[in-house]
Amino acid sequence: MTPRTGRHFLQIPGPTNVPDQVLRAISAPVIDHRGPEFRQLTLRLLEALGPVFGTSGPVVIYPASGTGAWEAALVNTLSPGDRVLSFETGHFSTLWRSMADSLGVETATDFVPGDWRHGADPEALAERLAADTQHAIKAVCVVHNETSTGVTSRVPEIRRAMDEAGHPALLLVDTVSSLGSIDYRHDEWGVDVTVAGSQKGLMLPPGLSFNAVSDKALAARRKARLPKVFWDWEPVIEANRQGSFPYTPATNLLYGLEEALRLLREEGLPNVFARHARHAAATRAAVRGWGLEVLSLDEREHSGALTAVVMPEGHDADKLREIILERFDMSLGAGLGRLAGRVFRIGHLGRLNDLTLAGTLAGVQMGLELAGVPVDSGGLGAALDRLRAE
Amino acid sequence: MTPRTGRHFLQIPGPTNVPDQVLRAISAPVIDHRGPEFRQLTLRLLEALGPVFGTSGPVVIYPASGTGAWEAALVNTLSPGDRVLSFETGHFSTLWRSMADSLGVETATDFVPGDWRHGADPEALAERLAADTQHAIKAVCVVHNETSTGVTSRVPEIRRAMDEAGHPALLLVDTVSSLGSIDYRHDEWGVDVTVAGSQKGLMLPPGLSFNAVSDKALAARRKARLPKVFWDWEPVIEANRQGSFPYTPATNLLYGLEEALRLLREEGLPNVFARHARHAAATRAAVRGWGLEVLSLDEREHSGALTAVVMPEGHDADKLREIILERFDMSLGAGLGRLAGRVFRIGHLGRLNDLTLAGTLAGVQMGLELAGVPVDSGGLGAALDRLRAE
Amino acid sequence: MTPRTGRHFLQIPGPTNVPDQVLRAISAPVIDHRGPEFRQLTLRLLEALGPVFGTSGPVVIYPASGTGAWEAALVNTLSPGDRVLSFETGHFSTLWRSMADSLGVETATDFVPGDWRHGADPEALAERLAADTQHAIKAVCVVHNETSTGVTSRVPEIRRAMDEAGHPALLLVDTVSSLGSIDYRHDEWGVDVTVAGSQKGLMLPPGLSFNAVSDKALAARRKARLPKVFWDWEPVIEANRQGSFPYTPATNLLYGLEEALRLLREEGLPNVFARHARHAAATRAAVRGWGLEVLSLDEREHSGALTAVVMPEGHDADKLREIILERFDMSLGAGLGRLAGRVFRIGHLGRLNDLTLAGTLAGVQMGLELAGVPVDSGGLGAALDRLRAE
Amino acid sequence: MTPRTGRHFLQIPGPTNVPDQVLRAISAPVIDHRGPEFRQLTLRLLEALGPVFGTSGPVVIYPASGTGAWEAALVNTLSPGDRVLSFETGHFSTLWRSMADSLGVETATDFVPGDWRHGADPEALAERLAADTQHAIKAVCVVHNETSTGVTSRVPEIRRAMDEAGHPALLLVDTVSSLGSIDYRHDEWGVDVTVAGSQKGLMLPPGLSFNAVSDKALAARRKARLPKVFWDWEPVIEANRQGSFPYTPATNLLYGLEEALRLLREEGLPNVFARHARHAAATRAAVRGWGLEVLSLDEREHSGALTAVVMPEGHDADKLREIILERFDMSLGAGLGRLAGRVFRIGHLGRLNDLTLAGTLAGVQMGLELAGVPVDSGGLGAALDRLRAE
Repeated sequence: MTPRTGRHFLQIPGPTNVPDQVLRAISAPVIDHRGPEFRQLTLRLLEALGPVFGTSGPVVIYPASGTGAWEAALVNTLSPGDRVLSFETGHFSTLWRSMADSLGVETATDFVPGDWRHGADPEALAERLAADTQHAIKAVCVVHNETSTGVTSRVPEIRRAMDEAGHPALLLVDTVSSLGSIDYRHDEWGVDVTVAGSQKGLMLPPGLSFNAVSDKALAARRKARLPKVFWDWEPVIEANRQGSFPYTPATNLLYGLEEALRLLREEGLPNVFARHARHAAATRAAVRGWGLEVLSLDEREHSGALTAVVMPEGHDADKLREIILERFDMSLGAGLGRLAGRVFRIGHLGRLNDLTLAGTLAGVQMGLELAGVPVDSGGLGAALDRLRAE
Repeated sequence: MTPRTGRHFLQIPGPTNVPDQVLRAISAPVIDHRGPEFRQLTLRLLEALGPVFGTSGPVVIYPASGTGAWEAALVNTLSPGDRVLSFETGHFSTLWRSMADSLGVETATDFVPGDWRHGADPEALAERLAADTQHAIKAVCVVHNETSTGVTSRVPEIRRAMDEAGHPALLLVDTVSSLGSIDYRHDEWGVDVTVAGSQKGLMLPPGLSFNAVSDKALAARRKARLPKVFWDWEPVIEANRQGSFPYTPATNLLYGLEEALRLLREEGLPNVFARHARHAAATRAAVRGWGLEVLSLDEREHSGALTAVVMPEGHDADKLREIILERFDMSLGAGLGRLAGRVFRIGHLGRLNDLTLAGTLAGVQMGLELAGVPVDSGGLGAALDRLRAE
Repeated sequence: MTPRTGRHFLQIPGPTNVPDQVLRAISAPVIDHRGPEFRQLTLRLLEALGPVFGTSGPVVIYPASGTGAWEAALVNTLSPGDRVLSFETGHFSTLWRSMADSLGVETATDFVPGDWRHGADPEALAERLAADTQHAIKAVCVVHNETSTGVTSRVPEIRRAMDEAGHPALLLVDTVSSLGSIDYRHDEWGVDVTVAGSQKGLMLPPGLSFNAVSDKALAARRKARLPKVFWDWEPVIEANRQGSFPYTPATNLLYGLEEALRLLREEGLPNVFARHARHAAATRAAVRGWGLEVLSLDEREHSGALTAVVMPEGHDADKLREIILERFDMSLGAGLGRLAGRVFRIGHLGRLNDLTLAGTLAGVQMGLELAGVPVDSGGLGAALDRLRAE
Repeated sequence: MTPRTGRHFLQIPGPTNVPDQVLRAISAPVIDHRGPEFRQLTLRLLEALGPVFGTSGPVVIYPASGTGAWEAALVNTLSPGDRVLSFETGHFSTLWRSMADSLGVETATDFVPGDWRHGADPEALAERLAADTQHAIKAVCVVHNETSTGVTSRVPEIRRAMDEAGHPALLLVDTVSSLGSIDYRHDEWGVDVTVAGSQKGLMLPPGLSFNAVSDKALAARRKARLPKVFWDWEPVIEANRQGSFPYTPATNLLYGLEEALRLLREEGLPNVFARHARHAAATRAAVRGWGLEVLSLDEREHSGALTAVVMPEGHDADKLREIILERFDMSLGAGLGRLAGRVFRIGHLGRLNDLTLAGTLAGVQMGLELAGVPVDSGGLGAALDRLRAE
């Protein structure tokens, strides 16, 4: 056994491996958040963030983790009793719906059930919207990449369904585990609020979160009656114009954000997305090579950020993860909610290269063998074939 | 002129100078927030936090900045329309009241006016509570150390007034700029919710905040009807029992928190408080030596964390700060709200030693002279006499 | 291609991957090298170093890289014209001999030729010493682990040959790439000067080097006439008694050394050696699985620190390394001296774990395939079998 | 007493306060010192170093501390028995002479005595050189800035004396505590070897040292017969042409060097020198204001890097330093050699700003008072007057 004698393999689907440049950046001394140097930093950050969201509109940065940004998206746009449509695509879509419910929004009527193996269904949405002739539904919530399942919803098709229905509901999209990893376009896809966090594709520690906001969402805010102070967009956007914040920002994480955005620009977003897609393809090749099943069922929806693997009957995914942690010092994602014990998740997002992925898949393969799961040891080789191919 | 040729003097009343040990701690690699190593970290942190708040009850850690912890204190304990009593002790007490107002709480009736040069008045409180025979007031909000004025409210006397009135209102106290700098005792003083942030006496970057919570506050939460999800204490306290969090915690700031708590223990809290008091006394000696006025008027209420200095008529405090920043690379605190331009604030909290304070006061003295403010240059000497004395 | 999108694989045989704890340690502020805090650091370090060398005698720390420590071993013990016996075990033994030559020592007579695939030959030594009835040979130089070949000489057998010959020559051993990776015992094996560097098994950046010194070597120093000032042991040992140094030490690397020694103690030296041996065995399993040849020919001499792999005729090892660097962002060691282009070297020393080794071997395998070298792709699997086995 | 509650004041004359940017730079992961990335780093460094030395010739970087670079200057240029002229300007000139002696060079004949309060005397040199009609003197050694005394020798006048004598001796200059702090020009001043270290004006931790080398020195090397391997310029200069080194370089300190050189360029060398001169003038103003004596006696020779202060009779400088360390957490330089206990030294070199200097001088003043040394407390004010003036 060789525990802890090298760099831990953090292959959960986020938080991801923060590049050492970013870690060094966040260890710089704190500066006056009301001084000129900070103002310049803020203005540079806001300019650099837009392209990552694919927006020329405002991006609100919260000194808070991603769950807070979900709450922000809701309280800024909705009023008590508003109807919100959501999809049962997995654990996080369920949690988001449940949050909306707790905040006083009506979610039961418009919850589209799902099997946790598919993304949000544009056709089901079209039906629901067509039935809502009174436009009682005020918002449609979609989780772009379901971190619990490794399924990526087709947001452009969701948008098209809304457009074709001529329905005025807002489109709120959770990109916590897709932004900076999977192609995403806030403006072009007509998203009203994009929710994001720092700790996945943005390659930062947790502690920052984001709302990209459309004009239509800003207009909705003016009529929304859920109470909001900390999450209120308006004072942030207003203060940001001069490079300041209405309350103390998380300075050191912002240092890291600047460095992380620089890394994304350096690689080029299209290359970043292609890299994630390629690593995802190699991972699926391994899974299938082992004779196991990828949880995601629709080819169009496989996630570039993570792959959830179905454990064969009679084998416990958590036991496997424990073996792998103990023997190979690697963390993998657990099955969440109804998938507990039945799947494990391999994160391949954020700062990652071929050989770390190869080491990851080698660890999974050895772990499966040690756990007594019947697998074909050619799985790793299939992944390497994919990685070597281009 | 010698800009930027050494370590910036960050002498605002927070964020404070983060010790380099803490900065290095926050640059450690992120770990799995659901793994065993993280659980141990959480449990250690929760154990170490109690003594700093002076509580054996739960302390909720938010991956968010201090303003959020204000909101948390309110939404966990109050319902729409509840009456809240607050004091106009300065800018931050005013902001907190205004937040309560925006959240749907009634604050206008019970706002005790003030001159921004004194703390919360226990006698005024006694009168107000005596008049509230129906116990309509549900909470009393006090800012322990007003960061905008350098005045520290006498919380034990506030408590006594409440006790003597036999009034059941909750006592909510903001210790954002006092915790870890000025003596504070959540349990002993009968506080129900203590609000704190990471970036002042706790010597961390901004990005974490805290609620210490009494049993009475926990009981109040069960009846409170303001919507709450992200800020809800209950799921955090519940998850904390096993060392986990209901949403992604701000891992790297937690690393820093552990190191900062270690530093506080190493010095010893009574020594920490004595050091702050001593630095504050030296600073006031300088101010008076210069022939200037300390904003705080009551000897019992001078802050150990910062000193607000009144500019003589005809001189602009912001111009002074600009000169000092430009010439001596030192940031000082601005006058806030109604004090804008009329005071400047010298932060002497967090990780600070005698010579950095001496350099700070030398910079203020030179700045005053350069700004043409008539001062006696013996001010610095008076401070050194104080520092040398013990 | 996915260059530079994660952590570089630094799999040369040193400098090795410095643990992030060590990197953080070396970034602490410099302190007064003549003050009490530094003295304590020095005394702690000297105490902690002994067990790593297996000595209770002095260990001299140089603020210089390993080549300097070679020079130190020679100039402290020898006089112009002294005869020194050395072995042609590879590139570094040749360089060391050449250095001795340049310093004015006679090396030509007593150079034992070799094929760069075996370690120092105890039998040849026995013959040479037997022939030296006048004891003209003053020192025997052995490279414990030849970094250029991956062959580890059997120092105890060398010692035994010297003892059996009753020969008084000093035994000087280079452990630059073995200390902290391969079992080594200065006192028990009767070594007179052990030469070491910081950047391999000690898991530090380059910049520190060491001489562990026997009483006999200290006695030899008193008569040695090669000029020495910077490298002179005596003033260092003398100053070290009080925790100081005769010239400015490399403070920040010493911080790192303390942390690195702590990591070695934490793991336990026997575990450290076993881990290296196990990784070496897995690597050889891969090499043989590919159908390639390990350079080291004697089972008793395979290095735990690195494996040199012979390229098949007609294939250029440097071209392979270039492909691997370009495609997989991994650095491997080049063939040195007469092995240039004919071997490549896989470093598996220092802070390393199974999955990083797996990623490394995956990268080598893919690289070989891309370079058109005919290999059996079962090599990686053979290594994994070995890693999984225990 | 407030020990260790903030940043230590490291006001010795080196090692100096390493800027936090530089500390972060040295904590980057080690890279392959034979790879393309390292080669680019080396070439950039060599290009950036020239201007700091004022040379367009080669600068040799040693992975060793400054004392080693002294040795390098000697062994590359001299042969056993060569006569070397040196000046008794203080502790370090004496040590350098003593090193030359130990290396086999003749130094007794040509040692110009001094009072440790003046620099090297150009007139005495002229006399000595005039007397040496046979040109038996092969080198003149000058310490540019005597770190033990705070006296800066006038190198251009030394050069002129040599030129006027038409004497062919080499000019070797130690700039360990002047380079990057006090104006220095290797080429323009006709210096043959400039010796420097990393830990003073270059704002790095100790561990790197330098020789800037003239063509004449390179020519001398070819005939010099002192043994040299590690210190030999030739293989370094040769390898540097391709961006490599003949032995493992101190990678992480080189990262720091690049950042430190960037900081020097950013400020501009003339500004760096002016800042040092200004801080030195303020320090002398304080010393004289206290009624104490500056050790340096000649206005033309006051050091910009440090100020040595003479203790009044009956007071022990080391006791003073102990009090200051204990009470104010500040390290000052001790009196060395014959000045032990009689002077203390205030370092004001490297990364330093006005307020840190003010804090330093405040600490010295309070310390003097606590030690019972009769001083005028107007000293600090005199320094502030100087700092405020421009």
